[in-house]
Amino acid sequence: MLPFQNLILPDRDKIFPIYKQITNRLISLIQEGTIQPGTYFPGTRQMAHLLNVNRKTVINAYEELLSQEWIEAVPRKGYRVIPELPVIKPRSFQPRNHFIPTVPRDLKYTSLVSPAVEARKITSKDIVVNDGFPDVRLAPFKEISEVYRDPVSSKKIKMLIALRDDGGLELLREATSIFLNETRGLNISKSDIIITRGAQMAIYIAAMVLLKPGDNVVVSDPNYLFATEIMTNAGANIITIPVDQDGINVDQLEKVLEKQPIKLLYIVPHHHHPTTVTMSANRRLRLLQLIDEHNLFLMEDDYDYDFHYKNSPILPLASASHNGKIIYIGSFTKLIAPSVRLGYLIAAPEILKKAIHLKRLIDLRGDTFMEYMLAQMIIKGDLSRHINKSNKLYAQRCDLICDLLTRKLSHAVEFTKPQGGMSVWLRFRDKYQINKVLADAARNGLLLIGTTFQKKGDVNDNGLRFGFASLSEEDMECAVNILSKITK
Amino acid sequence: MLPFQNLILPDRDKIFPIYKQITNRLISLIQEGTIQPGTYFPGTRQMAHLLNVNRKTVINAYEELLSQEWIEAVPRKGYRVIPELPVIKPRSFQPRNHFIPTVPRDLKYTSLVSPAVEARKITSKDIVVNDGFPDVRLAPFKEISEVYRDPVSSKKIKMLIALRDDGGLELLREATSIFLNETRGLNISKSDIIITRGAQMAIYIAAMVLLKPGDNVVVSDPNYLFATEIMTNAGANIITIPVDQDGINVDQLEKVLEKQPIKLLYIVPHHHHPTTVTMSANRRLRLLQLIDEHNLFLMEDDYDYDFHYKNSPILPLASASHNGKIIYIGSFTKLIAPSVRLGYLIAAPEILKKAIHLKRLIDLRGDTFMEYMLAQMIIKGDLSRHINKSNKLYAQRCDLICDLLTRKLSHAVEFTKPQGGMSVWLRFRDKYQINKVLADAARNGLLLIGTTFQKKGDVNDNGLRFGFASLSEEDMECAVNILSKITK
Repeated sequence: MLPFQNLILPDRDKIFPIYKQITNRLISLIQEGTIQPGTYFPGTRQMAHLLNVNRKTVINAYEELLSQEWIEAVPRKGYRVIPELPVIKPRSFQPRNHFIPTVPRDLKYTSLVSPAVEARKITSKDIVVNDGFPDVRLAPFKEISEVYRDPVSSKKIKMLIALRDDGGLELLREATSIFLNETRGLNISKSDIIITRGAQMAIYIAAMVLLKPGDNVVVSDPNYLFATEIMTNAGANIITIPVDQDGINVDQLEKVLEKQPIKLLYIVPHHHHPTTVTMSANRRLRLLQLIDEHNLFLMEDDYDYDFHYKNSPILPLASASHNGKIIYIGSFTKLIAPSVRLGYLIAAPEILKKAIHLKRLIDLRGDTFMEYMLAQMIIKGDLSRHINKSNKLYAQRCDLICDLLTRKLSHAVEFTKPQGGMSVWLRFRDKYQINKVLADAARNGLLLIGTTFQKKGDVNDNGLRFGFASLSEEDMECAVNILSKITK
Repeated sequence: MLPFQNLILPDRDKIFPIYKQITNRLISLIQEGTIQPGTYFPGTRQMAHLLNVNRKTVINAYEELLSQEWIEAVPRKGYRVIPELPVIKPRSFQPRNHFIPTVPRDLKYTSLVSPAVEARKITSKDIVVNDGFPDVRLAPFKEISEVYRDPVSSKKIKMLIALRDDGGLELLREATSIFLNETRGLNISKSDIIITRGAQMAIYIAAMVLLKPGDNVVVSDPNYLFATEIMTNAGANIITIPVDQDGINVDQLEKVLEKQPIKLLYIVPHHHHPTTVTMSANRRLRLLQLIDEHNLFLMEDDYDYDFHYKNSPILPLASASHNGKIIYIGSFTKLIAPSVRLGYLIAAPEILKKAIHLKRLIDLRGDTFMEYMLAQMIIKGDLSRHINKSNKLYAQRCDLICDLLTRKLSHAVEFTKPQGGMSVWLRFRDKYQINKVLADAARNGLLLIGTTFQKKGDVNDNGLRFGFASLSEEDMECAVNILSKITK
């Protein structure tokens, strides 16, 4: 007989009842081949004694095994493992030695974070400077919590949850269309829009719907890395054009367009990622003409539209005429908190229909409570008030960080004060290699987790996105002091 | 001069300040070509008079236009639209007539819902019978709300939000691995798992990571439609094998495997979707052998493991030996509420690494609050208690619905009482065509939005998933009465 007392060790502290633990363990032993097909089990009394459990517990376990057809009762002989069961070996999620699963699709991935920072465990004493996220201390978490507690909303939402999701809660699509018409001069209705998990999912879905392998896609250089990766993974050929103080170079775009057919252009017109440059009005208009002449799609990623300090933002390209060629993408996440993943995708009906289908395959439905909460925030004006409040605070922080950088870090960095948004693009002078700066900063308790860019000879070489919006005055001062110290 | 008083109509009830409304409207008029490049604007005093607004408002608007470079100041002559601006036409997201955007990738999509039901607006009087969702009345929305309000959790979470997301909150990955080890006899740690938005996203990500166009994939017939669509959209060739009372037909699978190389097999071993059949222990073991012999990947979608009424569920295939060939997928959404989109994907390290990268491209990060809340529920045992409570209630509902169906609907349907899960698979007799049943039911206030299956000659032809878990006794009785009435 097998030493069951050593093989089965029920643990009374576990959540699961003892009989279930015994059942599962016996199944594992059968699956492993430790208990061979045809083996007789000890009688229930003997097994209970061996395992030091109640006999009833063993009976329950055996009954379970019987009903699951692992064992059978043989009259006058007791229970045995069904002889016909094929034998198998111990479980493992680890591939066997020298075994590498063949994963053909090669997903390209660039880490935005330096290995030095990535390896480091973060403690509460560290100052973390992100890529440009909103300040979670301002986030309307109280309002979110109240939607869950309010019996009237809660009842309505529970009814909505029972229904199928066609690209987001209808109420939110409607509220969003009104919000965008007022703030961005769009002219859309709820049927022109779908809600996504942040702008990220909108970029992904639009790319997967529009692109087929071999299509040419133009992006800026540098570009939002995750957008480039999405296009690459969709099988597109990436063609890059440089970006300067007025946005992407439209002359060069024109030359590219004359040379080959381009399916899609991806741009970030406001506070370009990573450089924070805003595209000039003149270039925008020329861009619109080029789209029309060359019949290409434009993906306008306007994730940062709502945060502008010096003047109002320039209306999106999507607010002008484009015959359904612009896919407009935006983010509520950037307005609220990184964990509240809500964005939107606006496109011509044919594209939107496919986008809804793809979204359903990726992510069956949204978070109905969160979508309802946001719709209420828009309708009641809370979102606008929240934006205004954040804008004022971020503008102060933008002034302060630029002042600190000028006073204490001019020897090491160049930067242009951004017109809005949540981060400054720091270009470190050649002498200060960005990877060394990140590693030195990490050792001093400053974790710079924003995007970096390194490409020899490029004007943006050695650049780092320094997100200021979520930092207190003290943290900003401390962060700049550390940077100043390590670049001495 | 243009009739500005008719072209610009500031609305004092709007959220946005009047000067912004005027600015945006003027930009639109320039973009539309109504105001041509080089046109002079009326002086600020005159414009203020025309629009019946304060002169300061007009000055602000003009300054905005200046800073955005739409207009320029000409000494002694006033403001004019910059002459070099190219003229463009009115905005629209509607493609121009006879213009169809070329969307090359043909996404296949099958509606799960009949057109008769889809067209119908749902009212609060209707009884909605879904595909098999949990009862939202049991959902721990109070606990979710408390995580947002609790200052200690909230502070911790806010710190976590600042960090990058590597496939889900570490705490939740750890709690989930413990939960799965205890309930499913897996033997995994937090590094074997990523958190996704429900099982749906896990299926999508695994398929995109594993498959390349032209790969052969085997699925059951019928199958969970959205899984088949995901594989199809990944470019796979779909080969189907029938499913009977013991799950998929393993003999036929063996024949298929001998004929051609198969990359992936997708199965739902517990309460197969849509038929609710549970795969027998013997077939499971043969399946494991076939995977090993033919070196194929198995995607085990075990979304419904936790709801079992007659006996404990059979341990997943993934709990046996498989050398990294099984991708195990599960759902917390099914345990909690359709809006709480949390699932998981467990796979060998090579696959998981790529899955994390792809997840980041699709959906930058999860909902940190929700993930934290769920981790706490698992750690404190609340999730197990919630499952036990739901299990008891659903088991009663399962008994009741099966009893009702036997008593009142035997003339019209055949069904096998499921061993667990949240729905019954009703096979309507030939005489009662499913589309007619759905349409008649909808007219009588009964909306059947579960999956249907129609394939002439198939044993599952004319089938409907009838989700009972979310229905009260009265609703179940009423629903069966309506079905009985319309099939008289």
